[in-house]
Amino acid sequence: MSLDTARMVQMANAIRALSMDAVQAANSGHPGMPMGMADVATVLWREYLKHDPAAPGWADRDRFVLSAGHGSMLIYSLLHLSGYAHPTMNDIRNFRQLGSPCAGHPENFLLDGVECTTGPLGQGLAMAVGMAIAERHLNTVYGDELVDHRTWVVAGDGCLMEGINHEAIGLAGHLKLGRMNVLWDDNHITIDGGTELSTSENIKARYEATGWHVVSCDGHDFDDIRKALDEAVASDRPSLIACRTVIGKGAPNKQGTSATHGAPLGDDEIAAARELIGWEAEPFEIPEQVRSDWRDSAENGLRAHRDWQNRLSDHGQRQDFERRMAGDLPETFSLDDYIRSLIEEPQKVATRKASEMALAQINGQLDETIGGSADLTGSNNTKAGNITAFTADDYAGRYIYYGIREFGMASAMNGMALHGGVIPYGGTFLVFTDYCRAAIRLSALQEARVIYVMTHDSIGLGEDGPTHQPIEHVQSLRMIPNLLVMRPADAVETAECWDIALREQDRPTVLALSRQNLPQVRTDSGGVGMSSKGAYRLKQASEQRRVILIATGSEVHLALECAQRLEEDGIGADVVSMVCTQLFDEQDEGYRQELLPDVDPDEILRVSIEAGTTFGWDRYTMTNGLRIGIDRFGASAPAGDLFEKFGFTADAIVPQIINKLNG
Amino acid sequence: MSLDTARMVQMANAIRALSMDAVQAANSGHPGMPMGMADVATVLWREYLKHDPAAPGWADRDRFVLSAGHGSMLIYSLLHLSGYAHPTMNDIRNFRQLGSPCAGHPENFLLDGVECTTGPLGQGLAMAVGMAIAERHLNTVYGDELVDHRTWVVAGDGCLMEGINHEAIGLAGHLKLGRMNVLWDDNHITIDGGTELSTSENIKARYEATGWHVVSCDGHDFDDIRKALDEAVASDRPSLIACRTVIGKGAPNKQGTSATHGAPLGDDEIAAARELIGWEAEPFEIPEQVRSDWRDSAENGLRAHRDWQNRLSDHGQRQDFERRMAGDLPETFSLDDYIRSLIEEPQKVATRKASEMALAQINGQLDETIGGSADLTGSNNTKAGNITAFTADDYAGRYIYYGIREFGMASAMNGMALHGGVIPYGGTFLVFTDYCRAAIRLSALQEARVIYVMTHDSIGLGEDGPTHQPIEHVQSLRMIPNLLVMRPADAVETAECWDIALREQDRPTVLALSRQNLPQVRTDSGGVGMSSKGAYRLKQASEQRRVILIATGSEVHLALECAQRLEEDGIGADVVSMVCTQLFDEQDEGYRQELLPDVDPDEILRVSIEAGTTFGWDRYTMTNGLRIGIDRFGASAPAGDLFEKFGFTADAIVPQIINKLNG
Repeated sequence: MSLDTARMVQMANAIRALSMDAVQAANSGHPGMPMGMADVATVLWREYLKHDPAAPGWADRDRFVLSAGHGSMLIYSLLHLSGYAHPTMNDIRNFRQLGSPCAGHPENFLLDGVECTTGPLGQGLAMAVGMAIAERHLNTVYGDELVDHRTWVVAGDGCLMEGINHEAIGLAGHLKLGRMNVLWDDNHITIDGGTELSTSENIKARYEATGWHVVSCDGHDFDDIRKALDEAVASDRPSLIACRTVIGKGAPNKQGTSATHGAPLGDDEIAAARELIGWEAEPFEIPEQVRSDWRDSAENGLRAHRDWQNRLSDHGQRQDFERRMAGDLPETFSLDDYIRSLIEEPQKVATRKASEMALAQINGQLDETIGGSADLTGSNNTKAGNITAFTADDYAGRYIYYGIREFGMASAMNGMALHGGVIPYGGTFLVFTDYCRAAIRLSALQEARVIYVMTHDSIGLGEDGPTHQPIEHVQSLRMIPNLLVMRPADAVETAECWDIALREQDRPTVLALSRQNLPQVRTDSGGVGMSSKGAYRLKQASEQRRVILIATGSEVHLALECAQRLEEDGIGADVVSMVCTQLFDEQDEGYRQELLPDVDPDEILRVSIEAGTTFGWDRYTMTNGLRIGIDRFGASAPAGDLFEKFGFTADAIVPQIINKLNG
Repeated sequence: MSLDTARMVQMANAIRALSMDAVQAANSGHPGMPMGMADVATVLWREYLKHDPAAPGWADRDRFVLSAGHGSMLIYSLLHLSGYAHPTMNDIRNFRQLGSPCAGHPENFLLDGVECTTGPLGQGLAMAVGMAIAERHLNTVYGDELVDHRTWVVAGDGCLMEGINHEAIGLAGHLKLGRMNVLWDDNHITIDGGTELSTSENIKARYEATGWHVVSCDGHDFDDIRKALDEAVASDRPSLIACRTVIGKGAPNKQGTSATHGAPLGDDEIAAARELIGWEAEPFEIPEQVRSDWRDSAENGLRAHRDWQNRLSDHGQRQDFERRMAGDLPETFSLDDYIRSLIEEPQKVATRKASEMALAQINGQLDETIGGSADLTGSNNTKAGNITAFTADDYAGRYIYYGIREFGMASAMNGMALHGGVIPYGGTFLVFTDYCRAAIRLSALQEARVIYVMTHDSIGLGEDGPTHQPIEHVQSLRMIPNLLVMRPADAVETAECWDIALREQDRPTVLALSRQNLPQVRTDSGGVGMSSKGAYRLKQASEQRRVILIATGSEVHLALECAQRLEEDGIGADVVSMVCTQLFDEQDEGYRQELLPDVDPDEILRVSIEAGTTFGWDRYTMTNGLRIGIDRFGASAPAGDLFEKFGFTADAIVPQIINKLNG
């Protein structure tokens, strides 16, 4: 099994050469990490990683996460050399150029084998925690025959300094995710210089304190690396493998310094490096022996995949397993009956409670949901139906007590969604999207089906005050591309939003839910599914239409009240429930015009009502419309007092509308 | 000095009684923490904390930070009992009601003695790190006579689980901030239940691994608490004092459970608690002995303050010290000459470089700036002028290597700004505002003068790709109340923005700066200071005005190019540089109308150009205007290719304008 060391060295040098050359050609990039970790990566990919380059989507493959994403040439080299269809050598020649899948940082939507998008530090490691959670859970469902793989992470000092590292390893240590192994590129260098500039931490002791197994190795000694990896594999705790490396290893004058971190080495240094490591091939050429040694290293994975395929073919749960891994819902899944029952017997509940009610249905019908909360279970109402806790003793559970770790939770959910086979959802207060916004953005960029259950969505939460009251949050989340932000008005819309979110395979969703009770506004049994168009006419003007009230969530019932008052004054008013602006924007022109006709504001005044910033609402009210909102921080008081203070009453709003109509 | 234990017990019970009663009256709040930490807080405030209730703003007071802000009744009780003018008993009776300074969470702008706004967990502790940094720095400048105080933190398990905890203590441990002491309310309880639900961490070992001194005590044994505090005070490292407490201590049936965390105890349990702790006074009444014991505890602080006042009165640096602590700039401070020199000799530089040039001037003229970067010093260009590193060996330094800790940096800067005497600024990439957004929001809410130097502000950063390219960031930051977001177009505007930011004593600023070089657009020597109005006419139409181009930052020179093309076609076009929308919105109607006259779009078309989301630009272009932007994620390629791909060229924009004019 072990290859002659000299040939191993050349396999690793192939990574070094490709990394130097690609960064030089692009005149941009990070050669230091790929060169420093080339030896470790060679051992891992040749001897430990379970994967089949011919079938990158194989469900039971090991997951490899390059958390230090700036070292992207490491994974591009590994994928190419191992025989993945992409990247081709031409792709690598075009590293960091428009259209090449070899982007500056690895993007999961550009290349098979890139399990997640990395670059924002710490999040790769934190997503790997989610992958390891999904693996252990699916293992309990389908057994070792179908699910039995490891999660490997390459992380740098940056990943380990980021706060999310603390949350992620706390979770992994607590859940005893023994099949997760983090290879720490311990090179003592950050961008600004030596790590001693900014840290004095004993990282190994910290990991041990958090329940991890820790082992060290010389990252340039193959046997020592093997010994460390063997020990990590044998441990029943997650393992940190501290790989002492020299950044930019092979570059004779620059190695070991931050000069190799994020800039091309330059032609002279590359020439000197080639001489030092004995690499004679032309740029972007790989000697035949090296290439065949790399290709041979895929043999084990190929065999393992074939064996697995045999086990799958006559496995009793095959259909279910394949469906879940494909991300499809069961054909029988439907919330329609439940929604009809709500319409028949209207309920006045908070939408967070309505979410719990919907979840009871969902968790009953689907086995793949895995819920959780960042220590606000009773407030987010996320533990619904008959699900039990996912613990170190019972990976069959489907509810995760994430602790006070919003960012760690969001990243873990990204990892679960990308792993596949499960649909993660998790809650915190909406205002604390600020704690995990970087992960929400990555859900969107990675096209990951993650459902964020964000409750306490306005000043309506009351006494907790301005630190807890979202003002800019709903609107600012709406700006993130490929993210659905839904603010349902009642129990019916909440159930509809859940249905949409579950069916959106390539988009994450944020559900913005109220703390306070809301009357049910949807009582017409004809219209199950109205939320799917993003906005719809909830009430049609009786008198001649002069006003269109556009409201969301907890302000929809207020809009109805305003409309009624206006109608009493002979002013016809539509009410539009704008559940999700993004979905509305995707409707055809005809539907959008039908709902919000593009006529002179003197004829029909549009009014938005949302208990948050007015910024951005011009898009729907038009310039001359009226925007009811809050453009300052909130305050601490009972919710009713706050709605009064901030003008969210029909008494305050209706006169403004009439003034505007008369002005 | 030591008081009879029975009387100490009653002092602590006064906190318990007020906390139970206030939460009950509000029917909302968190009694568990104040009751659990009452004994520790009594020892600390009576015997250790250096403060003068009659002079809450005394510069050399100890800083007390209630990081577990939900336990706000603890600090309200302490302030009231110690004899601060506020809160009054009536304020406490109105806990969590509209208009009471006793808000749900402590707000620094509502009460003296509340050093910072807390509630978003972990940030109080992280701000305290900044306060401790400011203290040590000012100590080197003014000596022990004027600056010699401690920073005390009360933190719960939530604060310690949050990722920011890792960043904050890493920084504090590395910088050996020995005058910082964290009292950990080690009660084994979180909202969801026992801490064993979500964590298995050995917190003490983790703190030790990070360079902290750790000591434990029984949080209900006065002598043991004293012993621990003495040891903490004696240590030259920052100290974690693990106080083993019973949450809700005193409530016979609920103490030790999460039931006491965030809900009123109920009348029956309160009655039982009163009996258990022997508290016979009516609600909101304090027995005279207890009140006088509390008042007496302020004696030491009063004396210390008087002595300090004497030292200050004949101190040679008095004027300078008082000026800095008041937050005033020296009267001589001016960037005008520097700006005029730029206008005379225009420069083509990136605005991040222009920021460095401005900083060289600023750091030369001001002693109070303390800069830093989250490990991107060479990219953010934040180390400018003759400043040296702030290290454990040299607190006189004015540059902090924050490490890869964006959130920790932002919170530390909040703490520095709130401490006073220094003006913090710090940098990272703009996209990573997502990592510290919760702290940026707290800068704004707390009215803290923090200057965020956020570089690489668009797809113009090029090859690093979508994870590093801001799309929604500039706009979404503009939505945060009380935050100035500035995107300067060239070296002149950059210097003007710095000048504005430094003079804004009660508002934080985000500077969004380019990676790429930009031509200087301001070459008219008449107009130093134009940026202060938020927007101004950079170029006036020569032909009859049909178009107003509104651009920001790196797109201003593109707008000028478009205008030139339009003028060549006989279409008059103004160019407005919209440096800061918030400042523009604050101008009087006359100025705003002069710049952007409210006429029919058929007469004058408004066009916005910003390399970010178009969301929200309707406000300035009006509905029928044209919005040039990017409403998707970016891509990895050289900047020029990306601007081409995403349509940021005159060739792509001018025809759209002409079409619109003709349509």
